[in-house]
Amino acid sequence: MSMESTIKEIAVRAKSASRKMTVVSTEQKSRMLHAIAHKLAEYQARIQQENLKDLEAATAKGLSAAMIDRLRVNDATVQSMVKGIKDVAELPDPVGQITRQWKRPNGLDVAKMRIPLGVIAMIYESRPNVTVDAAALCLKAGNCVILRGGSEAFHSNMMLADIIQEALAETGLEKDAVQVIPIQEREAVTHLLKQEEFIDLVIPRGGESLIRFVVQHSTIPVLKHYKGVCHAYIDKSADIELAINICLNSKAQRPGVCNALETMLVHENIAPEFLPAMAQKFSGANVELRGCDATLAILGGIAPADESDWPAEYLDLVLAVKTVKSMTEAMEHIAKYGSDHTDIIITADSERADRFIKTVSSSMVAVNASTRFNDGGELGLGAEIGISTSKLHAFGPMGLEELTSTKFVVRGNGQIRL
Amino acid sequence: MSMESTIKEIAVRAKSASRKMTVVSTEQKSRMLHAIAHKLAEYQARIQQENLKDLEAATAKGLSAAMIDRLRVNDATVQSMVKGIKDVAELPDPVGQITRQWKRPNGLDVAKMRIPLGVIAMIYESRPNVTVDAAALCLKAGNCVILRGGSEAFHSNMMLADIIQEALAETGLEKDAVQVIPIQEREAVTHLLKQEEFIDLVIPRGGESLIRFVVQHSTIPVLKHYKGVCHAYIDKSADIELAINICLNSKAQRPGVCNALETMLVHENIAPEFLPAMAQKFSGANVELRGCDATLAILGGIAPADESDWPAEYLDLVLAVKTVKSMTEAMEHIAKYGSDHTDIIITADSERADRFIKTVSSSMVAVNASTRFNDGGELGLGAEIGISTSKLHAFGPMGLEELTSTKFVVRGNGQIRL
Repeated sequence: MSMESTIKEIAVRAKSASRKMTVVSTEQKSRMLHAIAHKLAEYQARIQQENLKDLEAATAKGLSAAMIDRLRVNDATVQSMVKGIKDVAELPDPVGQITRQWKRPNGLDVAKMRIPLGVIAMIYESRPNVTVDAAALCLKAGNCVILRGGSEAFHSNMMLADIIQEALAETGLEKDAVQVIPIQEREAVTHLLKQEEFIDLVIPRGGESLIRFVVQHSTIPVLKHYKGVCHAYIDKSADIELAINICLNSKAQRPGVCNALETMLVHENIAPEFLPAMAQKFSGANVELRGCDATLAILGGIAPADESDWPAEYLDLVLAVKTVKSMTEAMEHIAKYGSDHTDIIITADSERADRFIKTVSSSMVAVNASTRFNDGGELGLGAEIGISTSKLHAFGPMGLEELTSTKFVVRGNGQIRL
Repeated sequence: MSMESTIKEIAVRAKSASRKMTVVSTEQKSRMLHAIAHKLAEYQARIQQENLKDLEAATAKGLSAAMIDRLRVNDATVQSMVKGIKDVAELPDPVGQITRQWKRPNGLDVAKMRIPLGVIAMIYESRPNVTVDAAALCLKAGNCVILRGGSEAFHSNMMLADIIQEALAETGLEKDAVQVIPIQEREAVTHLLKQEEFIDLVIPRGGESLIRFVVQHSTIPVLKHYKGVCHAYIDKSADIELAINICLNSKAQRPGVCNALETMLVHENIAPEFLPAMAQKFSGANVELRGCDATLAILGGIAPADESDWPAEYLDLVLAVKTVKSMTEAMEHIAKYGSDHTDIIITADSERADRFIKTVSSSMVAVNASTRFNDGGELGLGAEIGISTSKLHAFGPMGLEELTSTKFVVRGNGQIRL
């Protein structure tokens, strides 16, 4: 069979399985998720054997220590997968929920009911735990999933998919609800992205080049996340100690992630008092600052920022700092250089907070709280399958609800259109 | 300037205008919409002059009478545009609405706030009233819009856009909030569909080939509607008179639209009594029936249906009829041949109604009501910009809310992530 036919057949089987998944009860889905968790623990040694093949190939290929580390499945990784699945099993089932209901003048009862999206394709890099996490969330929301992990995790992912399929079959569900693409060539992804007749959504997770590749080639809707260039604006009325704590946490608690702070914008009235105290804290946390001219005039001994610093997503202990004349200037800077991800204001003035909230169009806008809260778990969604920085369907962290759609359910007693 | 640069410049201007539209008040948007309505009435004669150019070109090109009719703008068309805009002005403003709000254990207040999508590109065929209707809905939801109507309506659309821009400028808003692509070649659309950096959503409206062209070429999310192959399933417990009224209305009230009935599935227990009475009514309304073998055995003198009839969207006074052994067979038929648009059940059995509702995954599933209610106005959305048959972002009729997204708004008093 050609590669194209193989991929199409996988998509057709997923679509067919998805018709049956729609009507599976919450209780049966829970049993299935617990069966997956049980089997992961049971097959822990065999998972690690398969993972070893990937680790050896990665070492032979000369992959970086950091990449090999992300690839590794040890006892703790399996335990964390098991816990993740059990947590998902406990979340409320979104399918069948009535989100709104109203009556029409002609007596029709109209409701919007949550339904699964159908078939979701996940395209991701390295970490094998995504295979399990994504499958659990998609299944809980009544979807089928086609998984395409990085080729360097091929053996680990095939083994994990086998385990999940065994648990599906044991609980009387369709094995095809979770499938892994068994082809390593990138061309397989190109074919997958053309199966719009059978796949409802593509979620890529990984570096910007992977995501751009998916967007360029997909005829299926894509939920995507390019990057997080997050800003903190320190208003003239900010409480200085509070601002220092929040900015330090936003930048330094975990600098390598998308919701870490990348640029600090400081009102000129507060800059002379705030910046030196803040810089001292940053220095203690090994954060390198790069400042505009006005910032350099206040803080000696830091590097000047140039035009390439403002749109930079450092993902490192580096921070761009700009002193601004007004909140308007700060908001214009965010509109020009931001990525619609996370932007915060530190202020004691609630009117200015409201104006900032209304004007800044990022997926999370916060007042007096760390950028690091833009996360499904932290915001209370229970779990997250990714963060969307485009506004269609979902904007920000995506939990179970974002893996569903709604249909109109209409009940009448003979109404016809006049 | 190259065509590509011209299109990019339009997109850049729209994006820039959209930042300002986000914060425009409900009151100012209302004044603007009323100004458009006022000017349309004022310039009625000039609109019709420009429309005459299009009509003359269409006649010279030999377009069909039906197409020329859809292109025509007469006094009644303008009055209907004016009324449509005033209606949109009266609808509640979705922007700024809080759709949900909750507290986190650490004291953070989390809310989801409705925001405009940003820039919407509409790509449509012939009817100039879409230019005005689409602009009004997009503007009311705080969006900017780029309009690309059919080349046969070029002069009418340019004139309508001029009027809208004049009204925008007069009410102190950005003219670039509404722009029409001033290029007739189809290549302009291809360039427009690549401006994902500046455009948030594409809505194509027209025939299936236009929509497939847009999906194939777009790197921007597309809300689409391929076709409506709508089914009515007549359950064994149906009230026969009620079933006859609803099926007649669904098929014959307006056969040329997407929510008209195309296939009737009849339970074999009720078929002998229902089909002859129904056929008599259809005959009186000039509806041609095409039946399966079991249907032919009950109804003499109708044509046999072949495999091409089941997926057909006739958009005409033709109906495919199949007698089925069970509701399960009916639901399987819908899953195989349906288009996820509108499917109804006629039954007196509420348990079977619930099972049909749960299993059938169309954008509207109705019990004992006409298929023709799948329409934004009829369902109470106030207005509609189209019907989506894909599940992402919106499924079914799209009103003002579907032209918005939501962002997370977080308020704290110094919370940091631990």
